[in-house]
Amino acid sequence: MDRKWSQRAEELDGRNPLRRFRQEFEITDQKLIYLDGNSLGRLTLRGHSNLRDAIQEDWGNGLVSSWGKWIDLPSRLGRKIAKLIGAKPHEVIVCDSTSVNLYKLVHAALRARPERTKIVTDRTNFPSDLYVLQGLTNPEDLSQVEGGPSAQFDLALGPETNLLCLTHTLFKSGAVYDMKALTAKAQAAGAWTLWDLSHSVGALPVNLNDAGAELAIGCTYKYLNGGPGAPAFLYVREDLITTLRNPIQGWFGADRAFDFELDYTPRPGIERFQAGTPNILSMIPVEAGVDLLLEAGMEEIRSVSLQMTDFFIEMADEVLTPLGFEVVTPRAHALRGSHVSLRHQDALAIDLALINDAKVIPDFRSPDNLRFGITPLYTTFAELAEAVSRIENIVSRKSFEKYRAVKPAVT
Amino acid sequence: MDRKWSQRAEELDGRNPLRRFRQEFEITDQKLIYLDGNSLGRLTLRGHSNLRDAIQEDWGNGLVSSWGKWIDLPSRLGRKIAKLIGAKPHEVIVCDSTSVNLYKLVHAALRARPERTKIVTDRTNFPSDLYVLQGLTNPEDLSQVEGGPSAQFDLALGPETNLLCLTHTLFKSGAVYDMKALTAKAQAAGAWTLWDLSHSVGALPVNLNDAGAELAIGCTYKYLNGGPGAPAFLYVREDLITTLRNPIQGWFGADRAFDFELDYTPRPGIERFQAGTPNILSMIPVEAGVDLLLEAGMEEIRSVSLQMTDFFIEMADEVLTPLGFEVVTPRAHALRGSHVSLRHQDALAIDLALINDAKVIPDFRSPDNLRFGITPLYTTFAELAEAVSRIENIVSRKSFEKYRAVKPAVT
Repeated sequence: MDRKWSQRAEELDGRNPLRRFRQEFEITDQKLIYLDGNSLGRLTLRGHSNLRDAIQEDWGNGLVSSWGKWIDLPSRLGRKIAKLIGAKPHEVIVCDSTSVNLYKLVHAALRARPERTKIVTDRTNFPSDLYVLQGLTNPEDLSQVEGGPSAQFDLALGPETNLLCLTHTLFKSGAVYDMKALTAKAQAAGAWTLWDLSHSVGALPVNLNDAGAELAIGCTYKYLNGGPGAPAFLYVREDLITTLRNPIQGWFGADRAFDFELDYTPRPGIERFQAGTPNILSMIPVEAGVDLLLEAGMEEIRSVSLQMTDFFIEMADEVLTPLGFEVVTPRAHALRGSHVSLRHQDALAIDLALINDAKVIPDFRSPDNLRFGITPLYTTFAELAEAVSRIENIVSRKSFEKYRAVKPAVT
Repeated sequence: MDRKWSQRAEELDGRNPLRRFRQEFEITDQKLIYLDGNSLGRLTLRGHSNLRDAIQEDWGNGLVSSWGKWIDLPSRLGRKIAKLIGAKPHEVIVCDSTSVNLYKLVHAALRARPERTKIVTDRTNFPSDLYVLQGLTNPEDLSQVEGGPSAQFDLALGPETNLLCLTHTLFKSGAVYDMKALTAKAQAAGAWTLWDLSHSVGALPVNLNDAGAELAIGCTYKYLNGGPGAPAFLYVREDLITTLRNPIQGWFGADRAFDFELDYTPRPGIERFQAGTPNILSMIPVEAGVDLLLEAGMEEIRSVSLQMTDFFIEMADEVLTPLGFEVVTPRAHALRGSHVSLRHQDALAIDLALINDAKVIPDFRSPDNLRFGITPLYTTFAELAEAVSRIENIVSRKSFEKYRAVKPAVT
């Protein structure tokens, strides 16, 4: 590959205002180019240290008395995540998984307004979200619109629509919806919106309050670097908190749970949307991840992310398009998250060759998508240039062909 | 306190067949007498070591590729827990919290047999279980019987009963229900049973298959030593697995989830009862905890547990009853789990004095209950004798009185 790219990368890294953050992460193999932080974020040094303390000091030595310090963790994490997504501190809580939180909020919305039975979503939504919605509605009440930035959701919205339920940044293409415009369209039809922020939170600035969005959920193990299967978050606009009823009435959503009253009364605030006992160990590293993002600032992160995705797309256009790749991610900044997707007919075999033979970790998404996740806190421009060079190498020599017969891996 | 108790304790410890297991746990303060393993079990050395590896090697270095080793963890843990509860390996899975699992199974049972709308439970059940049931039924469909070993559940069972939903070992008194007899009574009325095994699993032998029980749930952070808020398990009798539908249709319950099909098809086996991405870090220590119990054997554990609860009750009768304590736990072995509950009008103040001034950790349960959890893998007879001596000391000198004004702690 032309030397110009690595030279430009060096120059861009030199003036990257976020470059000091890379040393906040556990990176033992500097040759490994990790471009899958949008599937599983890296381990932070602080998160690692906090985990060691939580295991040895708090659980090992402090034992049950450590609940005094753990009990507020879901709310405290919620208050911090609120700053990343334009929410008020008391509108967000960390609990359960993204799927369970989606279930709770959609169930609550359908019960709060039973005269509105219909849900509108799109077929580019993350399949788990579609599955949860399919479980909560009759087929005739679920409109699965053809998605993407030009989707005509307004045609599907009507007086019976309860909820417009979308993923803000699409998991395959990396395209981003206009949250404010779509929330306004939904509201014009009297519908609420529910935004899945899994591929947006920590990747680009989000402002739920500015959009007037009613509900949101999201994941903490991608750009928040919370660790494998770390608990998710949910958001409810403040005026709706006491209107909505959590269908899963567990003790952590109950008022004065440790009085052991026999009848359920929900907690007054956002904490009512918790259910069972929180997974403390899985929650600990989330805080360090969020703290780093807050220190860096989402505006700065977005600025570097756009420079990085621009740089990657520019290289892809010049070096990879002639090798059969197509850039799927939108070119307009406003329509792009923090990952770039390339389509190639041999995507799976190329993915396996990159992982096994070239120390580049992208993400394959069936049938023909390769995702390259860009996480400005630890990704460098030099890594992006080197990754494109390694891809060029693999594909131009067709050294991926031996992987054609292999089945996809589990993630 | 009379020297005879510590002498007997020494002798009993000397011939305790399980005493080698204590060194499998992180115990840095040998003076601290921990009798709350039925609320939060101790950290095992193996679990600690496995966690260190999972964090550093698997997450830190292996990154997303470690999902190849994590993906089967919920099923593998299920297969191991199955051995503790008399279930087949393919009838148990680890996922979500106890409350969320209760919700999923009760919802599924009500949907599978819609003509049976009623649920029978008892008021000594753990409140979180009552809350979940209250959220899933109309008040007129939920019979909350006065509980305890002499409860007349058969009077409440009828042709409209869907489910008899009980906690096998009661969280306050430590009394145990006769699972086989009650399951047979329920079945005679055409009802299914759902057993919450949170205070039974790892505490005494359980045999769901022998009882013919249809459904069960349970917690892993008590006697299984899984860590704070570790994920729970659920059991479905094999013939019902494909009959029941998980209401929370997340991707981990979907067949071939990584094909990203747009329509939900449940997995064929017990895995269909998963929902979102599993909390890996919170799940890692569960395995080491279960392995230790399997190595020790539940029959041996039960035998030592009964010797220990007998010994504790004998001391309580002689030393503590004159100080205003009453033994609440049943005296018959068949009716007792692995914790002993004492009632005292100053229970809360005594609890605080024991924790703060005497290095004894019991558990207070409102309004007047002190629970002493006995975990034979790390509890010693000497600790039990010493605990009773310290309680006697605190109560006979009334040195707990300064804690009268303090509010209960969170657990």
